[in-house]
Amino acid sequence: MHHPAVPAPLMAFAGSPIDRADHIRVDDNALAGLMDWRAKVLVMDGLLPGVDDMGGLVWGSLADVPPDAELVFLGLMDGNACFAPVPTEGAEGPAYAMPRAWQIMQQLAPADLAIYGGARSLVDWHARHRFCARCGAGTKLVKGGWQRHCDNCGADHFPRTDPVTIMLVEHEDRLLLGRQPRFPPKMYSALAGFVEPGETIEEAVAREIHEEAGVRVRDVRYIASQPWPFPSQLMIGCTSVADDPTLNIDTTELEDARWFTRAELEEARAAGEAGTDLLYFPRPFAIAHHLIAWWLDK
Amino acid sequence: MHHPAVPAPLMAFAGSPIDRADHIRVDDNALAGLMDWRAKVLVMDGLLPGVDDMGGLVWGSLADVPPDAELVFLGLMDGNACFAPVPTEGAEGPAYAMPRAWQIMQQLAPADLAIYGGARSLVDWHARHRFCARCGAGTKLVKGGWQRHCDNCGADHFPRTDPVTIMLVEHEDRLLLGRQPRFPPKMYSALAGFVEPGETIEEAVAREIHEEAGVRVRDVRYIASQPWPFPSQLMIGCTSVADDPTLNIDTTELEDARWFTRAELEEARAAGEAGTDLLYFPRPFAIAHHLIAWWLDK
Repeated sequence: MHHPAVPAPLMAFAGSPIDRADHIRVDDNALAGLMDWRAKVLVMDGLLPGVDDMGGLVWGSLADVPPDAELVFLGLMDGNACFAPVPTEGAEGPAYAMPRAWQIMQQLAPADLAIYGGARSLVDWHARHRFCARCGAGTKLVKGGWQRHCDNCGADHFPRTDPVTIMLVEHEDRLLLGRQPRFPPKMYSALAGFVEPGETIEEAVAREIHEEAGVRVRDVRYIASQPWPFPSQLMIGCTSVADDPTLNIDTTELEDARWFTRAELEEARAAGEAGTDLLYFPRPFAIAHHLIAWWLDK
Repeated sequence: MHHPAVPAPLMAFAGSPIDRADHIRVDDNALAGLMDWRAKVLVMDGLLPGVDDMGGLVWGSLADVPPDAELVFLGLMDGNACFAPVPTEGAEGPAYAMPRAWQIMQQLAPADLAIYGGARSLVDWHARHRFCARCGAGTKLVKGGWQRHCDNCGADHFPRTDPVTIMLVEHEDRLLLGRQPRFPPKMYSALAGFVEPGETIEEAVAREIHEEAGVRVRDVRYIASQPWPFPSQLMIGCTSVADDPTLNIDTTELEDARWFTRAELEEARAAGEAGTDLLYFPRPFAIAHHLIAWWLDK
């Protein structure tokens, strides 16, 4: 596997064209020097992006935001400094509970979807972290929004990215997929769960599959990753092998889990958005789609 | 690569024998039922572990901690519920600034080092997150310490794990390693950096190497991972290939970076703790040691 299993441009929210220019974040003078009439500021309605007729993000200027707006420096693009404004409130709840966000995002071209995803994670984090977790005092945005600082106790706080494993389980040319109660009818996807303190990626994969489906796995392998902006996960896609297919489903996590044959998966993929009587294949914006497709095509 | 490149038992802080028993965390009655005379509580002096003559962690009972102590449920081991107490203060600063912690940890057997690492990350997070980042009010430990809840605004907060890429760069049978100013003399290690919101693992690897050393890489591949408890990183070990070895070092991050030949690396590895005139090989507790060893041995 000397080439990525899933090239970045195919993975939704990956492939941002912005140069993060991290040396500017730590240089107050450089940052101030970029905040002139040329600076581009993402036009957002709270956490929702503005989208033009061509599927592009809408950019305004510093004149479009209040002078006291908190701005995150996203980086440089075509020589211009790009910023995103922190909204009054952050998001509550997971992606599936945001139908309007999904509708708008589906209009975005891939590169702009990647810019928006990264920006959304950052400004949402700021909106939900205006106070110091160490002492409770108010904090201020510093380092171009890549840090918050507490003047009261001196603590620094950093935007978070939560690693999540999402994994295929293979047994005799079948794959284990599960469905959560909130999924649309017939939709099954790869099992997933947060990596916890004190474990490797491989340990997290094995633990999650055993917790959710009662299955022991071996030979965990990394396949591909994806940034997921609801609010800020790093999806770490893996595959694994089970010797015993007996299921013991944790019904507090999953409504159902079952083994799908290669033919069933191929048929569901070909059926696209319509799905088959048995299965609705995960959509391409989700890494699960690419993991299952990788397994079918390998 | 159908087997892990570095088996978990060889990777420091991995391979914990504790069953995390996540179904108990969410069940207040089950958790309360485990908090009797059989419960084991890690004996800690702040964030430092007690260690017995055999390299084992020292466990006490609930009678050894104040009735109002905040306790994190680590999981089950040999039928006993295991807990760790949240200290008054968390840690400030990185691992290298904690010589006493390192001295004590080097006495621990691998399985106990893994238990301690996971416990340390969790209790340190609690100690540094007693207030709500959303509204500033005090929060309380819930779900056996796998969550904190704010009664004032209703926000839930979760222990964090920060994904960090650490990577080899290969060019014509040489490896790129760098040194930070705080490293011991002659020590060089793999470049590393936090994965940021809005990027894949592969994108983070390429960005970090370019930022720190000015080198463009291709063919990023995942090799192995390691939990790192200072305070709570997930180290994601990768390898990559550079076509142009020209260096442009970011001296705010690195004191030096250079290409080492296979022979130089082999010699330094064989020299162990003594090092060679040129290079002090990273110690086995660091994933960098295993990544370089993997490259030498593959």
